[in-house]
Amino acid sequence: MSRFLPNLILTVLCSSLITAPTFSQNLPEANPPSDSSPRHVILIIGDGMDDTQLTLARNYLTGAHGRLVVDKLPYHSSVQVLTLDEQNPKLPLYVADSANSATAIATGHATSRGRIATSAKRDRDLTTIAELAKKAGMATGIVTTASVTDATPAAFISHINLRGCQNPERMLTSTSLDKTIVGCQQDLKANGGAGSIAEQIADGDTDIVLGGGRKNFDKTAELGSTTLIEQAEANGFQVMTQPDQLKKINSEQKVLGLFDRRTMEVRLQGEEGRIAEAPKRKLKDWLSWSPNTATLPAPMKCEPNPEYGNTPSLPKMTQVALKHLQARGGDQGFFLMVESASIDKQSHRRNPCGQIGEVEQLNESVQAALNFAKANSNTLILVTADHGHAAQIIPNRSKHTGNGEYSATVRTFTPGRMVRLITPEGQIMAINYATNDDSSEDHTGTSVPLYSNLPLPAMVQQPELFQIMKRYLEQ
Amino acid sequence: MSRFLPNLILTVLCSSLITAPTFSQNLPEANPPSDSSPRHVILIIGDGMDDTQLTLARNYLTGAHGRLVVDKLPYHSSVQVLTLDEQNPKLPLYVADSANSATAIATGHATSRGRIATSAKRDRDLTTIAELAKKAGMATGIVTTASVTDATPAAFISHINLRGCQNPERMLTSTSLDKTIVGCQQDLKANGGAGSIAEQIADGDTDIVLGGGRKNFDKTAELGSTTLIEQAEANGFQVMTQPDQLKKINSEQKVLGLFDRRTMEVRLQGEEGRIAEAPKRKLKDWLSWSPNTATLPAPMKCEPNPEYGNTPSLPKMTQVALKHLQARGGDQGFFLMVESASIDKQSHRRNPCGQIGEVEQLNESVQAALNFAKANSNTLILVTADHGHAAQIIPNRSKHTGNGEYSATVRTFTPGRMVRLITPEGQIMAINYATNDDSSEDHTGTSVPLYSNLPLPAMVQQPELFQIMKRYLEQ
Repeated sequence: MSRFLPNLILTVLCSSLITAPTFSQNLPEANPPSDSSPRHVILIIGDGMDDTQLTLARNYLTGAHGRLVVDKLPYHSSVQVLTLDEQNPKLPLYVADSANSATAIATGHATSRGRIATSAKRDRDLTTIAELAKKAGMATGIVTTASVTDATPAAFISHINLRGCQNPERMLTSTSLDKTIVGCQQDLKANGGAGSIAEQIADGDTDIVLGGGRKNFDKTAELGSTTLIEQAEANGFQVMTQPDQLKKINSEQKVLGLFDRRTMEVRLQGEEGRIAEAPKRKLKDWLSWSPNTATLPAPMKCEPNPEYGNTPSLPKMTQVALKHLQARGGDQGFFLMVESASIDKQSHRRNPCGQIGEVEQLNESVQAALNFAKANSNTLILVTADHGHAAQIIPNRSKHTGNGEYSATVRTFTPGRMVRLITPEGQIMAINYATNDDSSEDHTGTSVPLYSNLPLPAMVQQPELFQIMKRYLEQ
Repeated sequence: MSRFLPNLILTVLCSSLITAPTFSQNLPEANPPSDSSPRHVILIIGDGMDDTQLTLARNYLTGAHGRLVVDKLPYHSSVQVLTLDEQNPKLPLYVADSANSATAIATGHATSRGRIATSAKRDRDLTTIAELAKKAGMATGIVTTASVTDATPAAFISHINLRGCQNPERMLTSTSLDKTIVGCQQDLKANGGAGSIAEQIADGDTDIVLGGGRKNFDKTAELGSTTLIEQAEANGFQVMTQPDQLKKINSEQKVLGLFDRRTMEVRLQGEEGRIAEAPKRKLKDWLSWSPNTATLPAPMKCEPNPEYGNTPSLPKMTQVALKHLQARGGDQGFFLMVESASIDKQSHRRNPCGQIGEVEQLNESVQAALNFAKANSNTLILVTADHGHAAQIIPNRSKHTGNGEYSATVRTFTPGRMVRLITPEGQIMAINYATNDDSSEDHTGTSVPLYSNLPLPAMVQQPELFQIMKRYLEQ
């Protein structure tokens, strides 16, 4: 705490002095509660949810003039995302992955890409906010639409040098993006480590862990012959894999809910599963007067994803977790991290409808958090993203085409792939993906938004989120 | 005012109720000053300056961990950009241009693309904040690095149905992007109108107008035989075209400074004028083991633009304008709009160095505004953008390339164009442009940031900026 807070306060004070305001300013910080009733922190992360991803979802879900629930939170701030170079951690990289950014939020330390609550290069374990909360007698919970072993949830409840080491079978084969790290040998139980991410969760003390990733727990433990599900049960977890089991939670037990083998299904898809497509030369384009003419992808609406089925929703899992944590945390309160993971994963896939459904789930989870805060004082709600993503909203017709907003044949078009969504407002919203031409888009390096129900500094560095939560819980 | 403020207050109050905070909240609004000393509003617009454009400039100018002056403003908010369909103004479009977004800020009304302080379809003149301020006896000023007749400045001090009608020669030939509007016949002086944008400025009462665009004032007036420069002089303007004339401003006169024939030169360029380039197949790529391999553009630094010469800087023009406006406004105060225009224009050109130099100019102008506010109470500073833009920060190496962060030959690369900037930190920041494949990139549809020295709602619709300024000046 000592490392960051003086900076925070200094920044705010300096700003006050510089601007010489004419009336008393209230320091914009997440002030700690003044009484001793239980404190609760609900941290909601939209993976990849930068302002563009949020705006395209808002346009579709509420109309361009509308507001999401998250937009109604009274305090808004901007978050600088910090990433270190594994080779030389004094140097930055300008684009994060979910592992290093979740580590920053969870531990207060910037680190290098691929790392889970460990320091760049030196590979020291970094204490997480969930561990601090648990140590203080609070309950802790993780809810995600990804595998519970995926980078974002993992950074709160495990420590390992590579995000890929999600289960015992992947401990030697995982590599970092830039191949500077290979395998997680030092974390093998045989080498005195805590094992893979799934093993750390199964052996751990998190009060509730809900999401996907069952395949990582079907594996046999590194030591012994039981599966990790059996190992979790032996460690006191009520393990569930069916959505209706969420109704039968035993507050006397820890809960591990694994409702998908991998990432949970998303709510929405493009028509007949369509994702972004490249503008194409059709016969009529070759025959047109202009040699450089193409036909844009046909407009479409989002439709329900038939695979979604009875997947438990993020807000439902959030509600269940809040109830369980309140029972378990009692007078001590709790820390809960909720992740809407597939804003990122569907942007990688170039599927804006998938993204939109995931923002909708996040939004409903924010409402669940607000409902909780209304009934329970001393609740800090933070909603943020870990890093930026590929999708851009571009004009349906480029400014250069000059022949009307609505015709499909154009002389100017994106070199990437695009979707033209017919919004419920009846207009076309064009979305572009062009960070690369491979099977999956890249992240981007923008700063990301932060929303809260309590005052915050106008700008924070991502690791400062840890300090804000820690201070709130400690007071 | 009646139209928007109740909504603002309601939103904030509702948020307070929903979140049930445990300590008293201070309504986050730009509270009016409580005494009767002169009020000043300094509105600083970074054209196209969304979070990505700001982040890439910050990374270059201050390092990834650094802060710009604008980052130190104590209040941060998010702005929903609203654009209407000219054909059916009840419907939105999802990407703005600078004309409609500047109109929203200047007048409090969303409108359609290309329109300058006129309403979509009905073409009614919309009263601007500068006109209201002038009517109340205040001084008003415009400072820009664009032509003073360009869309952003024009929307504060003129009314016309098309941004292209910048001088008398363009009144019949200008067309809107989608060709739904052709010409500005109804605004010809011969038809009882106020004439082109340049004529409206020359005939107007703005106390100081500084920027580029001299070529629009060299034209002969629509009626009569004088140039518009002569017409401005006849209307009491001290017209200047040389930077050193800024030292000899006569506070008894209005000032029209035109320091470039078109847009003013920017400070920075890529090495030898290089802008973004497509990854290219070179012989070694064709000979490599992978059939889909390319060489990325060589990394480079930004360098001074030799054309910049003795161009007056934006902060210098801002300082001059503040002094002049304080003298002219006296006890009544003033309204000043400052635009850093070429964040947009250089992103259109795919020139990140040009963008970075323009953010630097904006940043220094914010410092000039803060210095003024320190010495003069009752100063509201707003810093915002009008719309999003094309540039994205992408990984120097795509996550799919998998062969190190630093080699130049890759198997995965953007289908657009990219620059790889060597930052002063010694790392490579890759910037991507891919909204189209024509001569100029398109705008994007993200929400944009808003910074202030006084409390604001956490989220505003762009037209509400007009209401915030109006209320501040009126009280």
